[in-house]
Amino acid sequence: MKAFLDDHFLLDNETARILYHDYASKMPIIDYHNHLPPAEIASDKRFSNLTEIWLSGDHYKWRAMRTLGVPERYITGDASDAEKFLKWAESVPYTARNPLYHWTHLELQRYFKIHELLEPGSAKRIYDQASARLSTPEYSTQSLLRKMNVEVVCTTDDPVDDLGFHQQVQSADSGFLMLPAFRPDKAILIGREGFNGYVDQLEAVTNRNVESLEDLLAVLADRIRYFHDHGCRLADHGLERLFAASYTDPQVDEIFKKRRNGVFISPEEEEQYQSCVLFELGKQYARHGWVQQFHLGALRNANTRMLRELGPDTGFDSIGDYPQATAMSAFLNRLDNDNALAKTILYNLNPADNEILATMIGNYNDGSVRGKMQFGSGWWFLDQKDGMERQLNALSNMGLLSCFIGMLTDSRSFLSFPRHEYFRRILCNLIGRDVHQGELPNDTKWLGGMVKDICYYNAKHYFEFA
Amino acid sequence: MKAFLDDHFLLDNETARILYHDYASKMPIIDYHNHLPPAEIASDKRFSNLTEIWLSGDHYKWRAMRTLGVPERYITGDASDAEKFLKWAESVPYTARNPLYHWTHLELQRYFKIHELLEPGSAKRIYDQASARLSTPEYSTQSLLRKMNVEVVCTTDDPVDDLGFHQQVQSADSGFLMLPAFRPDKAILIGREGFNGYVDQLEAVTNRNVESLEDLLAVLADRIRYFHDHGCRLADHGLERLFAASYTDPQVDEIFKKRRNGVFISPEEEEQYQSCVLFELGKQYARHGWVQQFHLGALRNANTRMLRELGPDTGFDSIGDYPQATAMSAFLNRLDNDNALAKTILYNLNPADNEILATMIGNYNDGSVRGKMQFGSGWWFLDQKDGMERQLNALSNMGLLSCFIGMLTDSRSFLSFPRHEYFRRILCNLIGRDVHQGELPNDTKWLGGMVKDICYYNAKHYFEFA
Amino acid sequence: MKAFLDDHFLLDNETARILYHDYASKMPIIDYHNHLPPAEIASDKRFSNLTEIWLSGDHYKWRAMRTLGVPERYITGDASDAEKFLKWAESVPYTARNPLYHWTHLELQRYFKIHELLEPGSAKRIYDQASARLSTPEYSTQSLLRKMNVEVVCTTDDPVDDLGFHQQVQSADSGFLMLPAFRPDKAILIGREGFNGYVDQLEAVTNRNVESLEDLLAVLADRIRYFHDHGCRLADHGLERLFAASYTDPQVDEIFKKRRNGVFISPEEEEQYQSCVLFELGKQYARHGWVQQFHLGALRNANTRMLRELGPDTGFDSIGDYPQATAMSAFLNRLDNDNALAKTILYNLNPADNEILATMIGNYNDGSVRGKMQFGSGWWFLDQKDGMERQLNALSNMGLLSCFIGMLTDSRSFLSFPRHEYFRRILCNLIGRDVHQGELPNDTKWLGGMVKDICYYNAKHYFEFA
Repeated sequence: MKAFLDDHFLLDNETARILYHDYASKMPIIDYHNHLPPAEIASDKRFSNLTEIWLSGDHYKWRAMRTLGVPERYITGDASDAEKFLKWAESVPYTARNPLYHWTHLELQRYFKIHELLEPGSAKRIYDQASARLSTPEYSTQSLLRKMNVEVVCTTDDPVDDLGFHQQVQSADSGFLMLPAFRPDKAILIGREGFNGYVDQLEAVTNRNVESLEDLLAVLADRIRYFHDHGCRLADHGLERLFAASYTDPQVDEIFKKRRNGVFISPEEEEQYQSCVLFELGKQYARHGWVQQFHLGALRNANTRMLRELGPDTGFDSIGDYPQATAMSAFLNRLDNDNALAKTILYNLNPADNEILATMIGNYNDGSVRGKMQFGSGWWFLDQKDGMERQLNALSNMGLLSCFIGMLTDSRSFLSFPRHEYFRRILCNLIGRDVHQGELPNDTKWLGGMVKDICYYNAKHYFEFA
Repeated sequence: MKAFLDDHFLLDNETARILYHDYASKMPIIDYHNHLPPAEIASDKRFSNLTEIWLSGDHYKWRAMRTLGVPERYITGDASDAEKFLKWAESVPYTARNPLYHWTHLELQRYFKIHELLEPGSAKRIYDQASARLSTPEYSTQSLLRKMNVEVVCTTDDPVDDLGFHQQVQSADSGFLMLPAFRPDKAILIGREGFNGYVDQLEAVTNRNVESLEDLLAVLADRIRYFHDHGCRLADHGLERLFAASYTDPQVDEIFKKRRNGVFISPEEEEQYQSCVLFELGKQYARHGWVQQFHLGALRNANTRMLRELGPDTGFDSIGDYPQATAMSAFLNRLDNDNALAKTILYNLNPADNEILATMIGNYNDGSVRGKMQFGSGWWFLDQKDGMERQLNALSNMGLLSCFIGMLTDSRSFLSFPRHEYFRRILCNLIGRDVHQGELPNDTKWLGGMVKDICYYNAKHYFEFA
Repeated sequence: MKAFLDDHFLLDNETARILYHDYASKMPIIDYHNHLPPAEIASDKRFSNLTEIWLSGDHYKWRAMRTLGVPERYITGDASDAEKFLKWAESVPYTARNPLYHWTHLELQRYFKIHELLEPGSAKRIYDQASARLSTPEYSTQSLLRKMNVEVVCTTDDPVDDLGFHQQVQSADSGFLMLPAFRPDKAILIGREGFNGYVDQLEAVTNRNVESLEDLLAVLADRIRYFHDHGCRLADHGLERLFAASYTDPQVDEIFKKRRNGVFISPEEEEQYQSCVLFELGKQYARHGWVQQFHLGALRNANTRMLRELGPDTGFDSIGDYPQATAMSAFLNRLDNDNALAKTILYNLNPADNEILATMIGNYNDGSVRGKMQFGSGWWFLDQKDGMERQLNALSNMGLLSCFIGMLTDSRSFLSFPRHEYFRRILCNLIGRDVHQGELPNDTKWLGGMVKDICYYNAKHYFEFA
């Protein structure tokens, strides 16, 4: 029997262990998509206690606590940080088999060298010990990133952002790159309540009037150029699905003007507008040599009562079952046909769609760029052992694992970087298992090279960060 | 190599064995959803032979026999019970790898202490031996339930049922509770042929006229109260998917009246009616503190020729691929928004939807009740090792296994209760495997407590049976 | 640790090894569906080098090379055969974990007794050695089939084909049967560009005018009779999904006439026409005692730029997510209701649909023919270990594995027959694992008989080839 969370965690045989310890673990981290707050990196913030850094923004933990019947007061409410921590400590043992159980103890080990299990009996000890460390310079945000051997972090930024924090970090000697990523969802989702206000913001930041589709696209192109000049090489989009309706530019221009004037537009018109803007953005990304990312399939804000009370991204989202394949293919094909298909990463939230994405990418890999089209790593609810293994297996069976650009945290937490380790162990274990079972040759050096590519070099070559 | 179906069946390591034998196996059974005939329990019926109790109502076995080319005469036709049994015995070896193979031999072992394999050579011996036992008092329906340590059975009952058999059992000293569950499908599915006849039945049983939506809802509320007074704490619904169309009460009132008057109603109108009635029922359930169950995703009566010849529930149903997430979320949200969301169990038949349900429940777990929203155990075609493991893993990865209320038979057969054992072994094996691989701490006592919760205590606390 | 690709490849325990080596491996091959060119079999063609036989038609390999960034010149372009082979050899190590890696080395071993790994260092040696052998009579197309113990091959043929090559092979003493299979997709897909030209071809080959639906159905019935007289016992259809719209014959007649006259027809009309013709063909198949096959769920020609440049079937197809269950059930039910449901094999490309098909077949297994309805083996992207295991497990859990007719290559390549071995090893391994874990009795003889049935006898009895 293996001990819990020891050196060989998730590594079931000798080959897996060699691949992880001698190859994977030595690679720096390129965290090419996350939701870290640039301000907190720029200010090299320190956290006052373990609740602040660990619980205050983590909707995974919140969901678990609510499932256990913990009142909201101890989750997002006005209980003290110490009280909140105790409630979390009481909850942890009941998260057995959920990734939270692994993440919790992995993070305590890696950041704080705490090897105890978190439970009511150890709660105070752990809280005090970790909180004390958090007050030292080694636990500032930048130190935490350096501690994890992070080479690049790409944040997620709105087109109207001035990227001041990024400049600030860039001019400092932080030891890593912090780059922005362009996320124009608010300009795409025309049906949302705040759309017109958002276009006003675009006008303000560019000092231009936006009265037509042409204006809008020009302003977005401006911001893309601005982001590019500040080191941005990725875009990201959080959408239920991709859009590929038929439209003409004049039609979409009229739709945009109607919306600007407060006139009702139909779902079909929304679809046309979104198809157009996403296509035009895609062309811009291709022109700048960017990578475009699509996070597809989430059913968001499913609980309107809690949305009213707590706002979005507080743990009330789930997995949707939107049809994906036909529109995804039509959208990508339209860009490809125009010689304007950028390098692309497709992420899906419903694992039933894994094989659709794993085969879709092959349709647009045309020999021009190694691994041009990517099926992204297990995302959100799928960011756990089973979800990662299924993504890795689908990609292996239907595409080429060797070209995969690997893991990203997609996280809001400064303590989430051991998820790269988690991914790397799982990756090495799958390969090691194949070797052990005679399904791959026992050529550790070759396979170790492939592991290093997936953990680091593929991403490095793919994104071409300056 | 392990022997077939020995004491350690499905238990691959020592931890799994301890968890099962020392914890799970000792727990009583709360079978909170099944289709046992209340009359046969009330009368403490005995069966004349093994065919009657084992083959005469079991469409799982029928499907297998038809696949093997066995003529209908030996399945539901006029062959003798002995002939039918022989055909089944001939079929059994060909069911290898199907759950029928396990169930068959598990049931022979547990109920009859027969450890032989069923095949043509052993058929007569087994038939005679088991049939002889069935004639003794220890094999009456009530004895069979007691033999399996059953504490509660919840049957599935129509709103028009007078629950006389339940009263009869309640007043006897049976050693277990038999409670009704409220299944109002016939009042919901307005498009079905027998709808008006069914409303007439509702009128008769309540001695009231049902001429409007208001009347209908009042009558249903009456019956819910009646069921509640007879110990009912659960409702159940067998639907392709949930309904959440927009409607107004006057619209639905008109739709109902049209249908009552034999006027054609459109699919959209059906959807509106169903959305309304399901919502109103949900509010009633919440008011009474009930649990509402939804069995979703079956494609029923797929063979109209056999439906004509044999009727429904004879083995001609399969798995559908209806979109589930959006309407499910809208329906639950509407109730939640009205502070009227009852404790809810969602069951799905298409395993591709597992992750949708496993994450959907998290949207409405609000800290008010531990495990308020449940993703139900593998159902019907999914009630086998692979299906159960996938449900347990999806729930573990995306929710909290520790809060799960566990297994139910959903069966029409008095010999199906070893499926609780089957489930418990699978559960213990998954946990034991995690411990063995170092993915959970080796804390048998803690994990044993969690196992007992899932097998018994969670359900006991959840349903609050009187 | 097991050596790579040794005698016990994919066989994890002793029972699996006995089942494979003593039972499965001895069975002849009935390859009841493939895309081998009849002309190349009839002429007993020899290949000039390994590139010609191995790379020139294999879009699996092409996709892998494009993913790796290999320019099209070395894939389908004008590079020399030797250059193309070297590019493939460079690619092979990067296909680790993709089935190509296994197939490549399995084919080198089985056909050429080459046990080296293919990589740049071994490329020239392997190319020369294999190419030299290909020039000998033992490597003619017919010899290659005999070498693999092939008893029957069923090609895929257009209704207008004169089947001359089949006659030629039949009259020779080839040692195996080459039979045609009827694939009328071009007569069904009325919306496709070449539809009218194709109907003209049908007119020419039957020497009849086709001016109405009645004419069309008569002509198709003619060709079915012609195919039947030439030994055909199977039809095949490559469709996104099945069709079951409501229609009347006069409606469809009008739709057909409109299309013949170049008048636009709507998607709904296409659906009606296709529903009608598929239904009428199904009745014909039943009348002749044929087996009808449906390959469902592919999203084809997803890259129109490459379609223009290279044509169809060049590696730009992927997996779709079309709704399958409802129309599939309606279509099969309509035939069954008419007592005209032929033996049927359903193949799906999206593994999320496995359970739909595995349960759908049970709806129409009526005891008339053992294993009448079949859930076909893992197809195309699913023709790999994981895909095959999932198909076998879904079938086992929800139907009867014992009645399965097993593997087919569906391949265009004369070197693809080791995929039967691949399948057989996977099958034996699943069964052996169950025995080893105590989930099946250790009765090797019984299970060996079942294995022989699945590998050979079930297909032999099912197809009733003359």
